[in-house]
Amino acid sequence: MGTPIRIGIVGYGNLGRGVEAAVSHNADMALMGVFTRRNPAELNPARADTTVFAYDALTEHHDSIDVLVLCGGSKEDLPQQGPELAARFNIVDSFDTHARIPEYFAAVDGAAHEASTTALISTGWDPGLFSINRVMGESLLPEGDTYTFWGRGLSQGHSDAIRRVPGVAGGVQYTIPSDEAIDSVRSGLRPPLTTQQKHTRECYVVLQDGADADAVRAAIVTMPHYFADYNTTVSFISDDELRRDHADMPHGGTVIRSGSTSHGKRQTIEFGLQLGSNPEFTASVLVAYARAVHRMGAQGQYGAKTVFDVPPGLLSPRSAAQLRAELL
Amino acid sequence: MGTPIRIGIVGYGNLGRGVEAAVSHNADMALMGVFTRRNPAELNPARADTTVFAYDALTEHHDSIDVLVLCGGSKEDLPQQGPELAARFNIVDSFDTHARIPEYFAAVDGAAHEASTTALISTGWDPGLFSINRVMGESLLPEGDTYTFWGRGLSQGHSDAIRRVPGVAGGVQYTIPSDEAIDSVRSGLRPPLTTQQKHTRECYVVLQDGADADAVRAAIVTMPHYFADYNTTVSFISDDELRRDHADMPHGGTVIRSGSTSHGKRQTIEFGLQLGSNPEFTASVLVAYARAVHRMGAQGQYGAKTVFDVPPGLLSPRSAAQLRAELL
Ligand SMILES: NC(=O)c1ccc[n+]([C@@H]2O[C@H](COP(=O)([O-])OP(=O)(O)OC[C@H]3O[C@@H](n4cnc5c(N)ncnc54)[C@H](OP(=O)(O)O)[C@@H]3O)[C@@H](O)[C@H]2O)c1
Ligand SMILES: NC(=O)c1ccc[n+]([C@@H]2O[C@H](COP(=O)([O-])OP(=O)(O)OC[C@H]3O[C@@H](n4cnc5c(N)ncnc54)[C@H](OP(=O)(O)O)[C@@H]3O)[C@@H](O)[C@H]2O)c1
Repeated sequence: MGTPIRIGIVGYGNLGRGVEAAVSHNADMALMGVFTRRNPAELNPARADTTVFAYDALTEHHDSIDVLVLCGGSKEDLPQQGPELAARFNIVDSFDTHARIPEYFAAVDGAAHEASTTALISTGWDPGLFSINRVMGESLLPEGDTYTFWGRGLSQGHSDAIRRVPGVAGGVQYTIPSDEAIDSVRSGLRPPLTTQQKHTRECYVVLQDGADADAVRAAIVTMPHYFADYNTTVSFISDDELRRDHADMPHGGTVIRSGSTSHGKRQTIEFGLQLGSNPEFTASVLVAYARAVHRMGAQGQYGAKTVFDVPPGLLSPRSAAQLRAELL
Repeated sequence: MGTPIRIGIVGYGNLGRGVEAAVSHNADMALMGVFTRRNPAELNPARADTTVFAYDALTEHHDSIDVLVLCGGSKEDLPQQGPELAARFNIVDSFDTHARIPEYFAAVDGAAHEASTTALISTGWDPGLFSINRVMGESLLPEGDTYTFWGRGLSQGHSDAIRRVPGVAGGVQYTIPSDEAIDSVRSGLRPPLTTQQKHTRECYVVLQDGADADAVRAAIVTMPHYFADYNTTVSFISDDELRRDHADMPHGGTVIRSGSTSHGKRQTIEFGLQLGSNPEFTASVLVAYARAVHRMGAQGQYGAKTVFDVPPGLLSPRSAAQLRAELL
């Protein structure tokens, strides 16, 4: 395999732990350390051989890291860390605030060009693999419609919204794609569908002592933006059940391109994910793209990049000749 | 849109007709003509504005064509036409003899490098989109297994084999993926499965006058390599039924990567196609990749390429900034 690709992890939350595990599954990579804004002594890494450093120690590690995998949150952490670190390292991140991607891209691109680094932003599954399938779908079948369904999966934002309702002690929300809507898309009918028609929402809620279940349910299902426009169900469970049955972070979804070629021949392309753990899968995607970033950097392809710029072969540890002989 | 990408079609069979239709669905492309080894006057193109030229007329069209889409057969035509035309034009083809790809790649690569042209070989859906998903699946989930299922679809090779059986006047064969096998893969069990266990074969046969149905059935289901190892059914139909119900060339299939990340969390990636017309879909893929070839040629990326070398964004008529803002 030659010299391993030296990876640094910035931020040690769900994604950071996932990257730690994912690097260990890739024989051509070595984990150089985790860098955190918290006190390194207070972190307990999952693997015995993982070293934790302070964020500021990145300065001393400049020459011993090939790619930094940024695992901070998209809201507060990445807008600052992305441009700051792209000015010193090759980076990859999973920035997922769709509406702010152009401005984030511009900030990272400026820093990366100035420093001659390669900075791949917004990979993961959505944005990420789903985006690739949206682009390929409409490019391959220009006469058609694209549908993205999310779930079955735990939505962090909607779970947070439930927990802010008075009387709620805890809770989670699952986004469920409508089987009916998926079937009508698969049939080739190309129905017009709103996000609301494509999904339902399932809430599992732990009440505070003495809270009124009916009032809590009403407050949830009528909440504007989050639930009012959806078919929403609320189930009340105990704190034990919440811990036992709802600790995982499953997610997934489906991107379908339904189109036609000449003579109205129906053609359907479908890409689906069923993820036992959303952060662990996202971390695996980040790590494969770190390999591509390392190679693009070595080729002198500097600046900000997205998944749209990455040839699929660069994700694989195999050589181009091997890929052609064994997987084409 | 600026100047259109000028496309030439080489060979006018199923794929050639599909490319003619596909170019008309892409506003940034213009069809310069069809080039055939047969007498151009004897071809009837599907569109009134399509001009047919003799293959030898390609010489005069050197400066009016940006990319040639090669639509010849993989067995006899492409091994000769690919290297010959890559020495003069940017090309794209759907060469699908998997075992001979390395040698074909080398022949085309030599010609293309010498001539400073860009030559993308073996695109379509398999090889092509399925190959991309095989590579991405194992790169994203190194701990896992990849499964390719084909069908439900018409297999040309198996249909030809049926028609060679004594007593058969006509017939078609459909490859059917086993629901049971797909379900066991989707469940995350990662079962070991042979091609035979993954597929069954359905034959629709028209008998010659006076032929013995039982003898024909026995000859088909015991045919080595083609049917003997499969669960094969044979239905006898009339010539009218064959023409009426089996004239289309549907196909498709599914590539599934079933893997796990840390803590044994199951993760499944699935890519599926349901194609009303195999050649028309393959043609649509060729045309989108012709756009990428044109751009890679303009960037000076010469030599033979495969789908593994093409960034997804190059397939789209939209600009990189548009793609980031609208589809990421
Ligand atoms: N593109 C996609 O498909 C996709 C999918 C999933 C997630 N994402 C993105 O990934 C981002 C990160 O997700 P995540 O689940 O890893 O977030 P998280 O667990 O909240 O971690 C975010 C950061 O918070 C800090 N942190 C973690 N645990 C902490 C604790 N106990 N106390 C104080 N600080 C703590 C860590 O930085 P320090 O170690 O420096 O303190 C960490 O990097 C999300 O914001 C989302 O945008 C993208
Ligand atoms: N990668 C993939 O996923 C994929 C999928 C499907 C197919 N393919 C490939 O595509 C190749 C072409 O498929 P196809 O269905 O287009 O084959 P086809 O219809 O047999 O055409 C092949 C060539 O035969 C000649 N031809 C066509 N009709 C003819 C006729 N009536 N009489 C004499 N010659 C005729 C044409 O060349 P002239 O005009 O020069 O005579 C044409 O280019 C296949 O060999 C297969 O390898 C790949």
